[in-house]
Amino acid sequence: MSVVYGYLGSMKARSGHRDEVVEILTGGADGLRAAGCHLYVVGVSESDDQTIWVSEVWDSKEHHDASLQLPETRAAIARAMPMLTGEFDSHEIAVVGGLGVPVAND
Amino acid sequence: MSVVYGYLGSMKARSGHRDEVVEILTGGADGLRAAGCHLYVVGVSESDDQTIWVSEVWDSKEHHDASLQLPETRAAIARAMPMLTGEFDSHEIAVVGGLGVPVAND
Repeated sequence: MSVVYGYLGSMKARSGHRDEVVEILTGGADGLRAAGCHLYVVGVSESDDQTIWVSEVWDSKEHHDASLQLPETRAAIARAMPMLTGEFDSHEIAVVGGLGVPVAND
Repeated sequence: MSVVYGYLGSMKARSGHRDEVVEILTGGADGLRAAGCHLYVVGVSESDDQTIWVSEVWDSKEHHDASLQLPETRAAIARAMPMLTGEFDSHEIAVVGGLGVPVAND
């Protein structure tokens, strides 16, 4: 069974700032492919107006960690951080299959 | 901004049964496309040996809800349920963009 790295994370935007944070998060998505990212899904909670979820699939944990050091990623984090409450939650997973993920049909 | 329905869920398998549950979850993945599913990522926690995460993107909440009533889905749930602890967590999101998701480049 192939194993690919998955990262599920949530954050909360300060009141009124969620759309701006979402724009920052989605704005750099196209560039992630070259960094080893297969999927990067950004979504907002339907039960409150603060929570943002990201669901990511990467070649490896090392690729994900390295991406956080890219200049464009660091700049995006620096822009978003003041608009966040500081409440984060994250889960690391080994992706084992599914539909639309690289391991599924390899 | 397009909106697509996302579902993030976790469950816990009884000790020693996680691989069996993962096989049930991933076994029917190919059939989900016809039901309106774009992404269905199954992953296992790397910090314990019980937790399973699913990260899903669907055409709409209605498509997701309807899929739970399909005979093959109901059969899979019936097979998996005795191997689960009963601890579930889930989050519904509006998918707003990213990489590898249908809304991103539409």
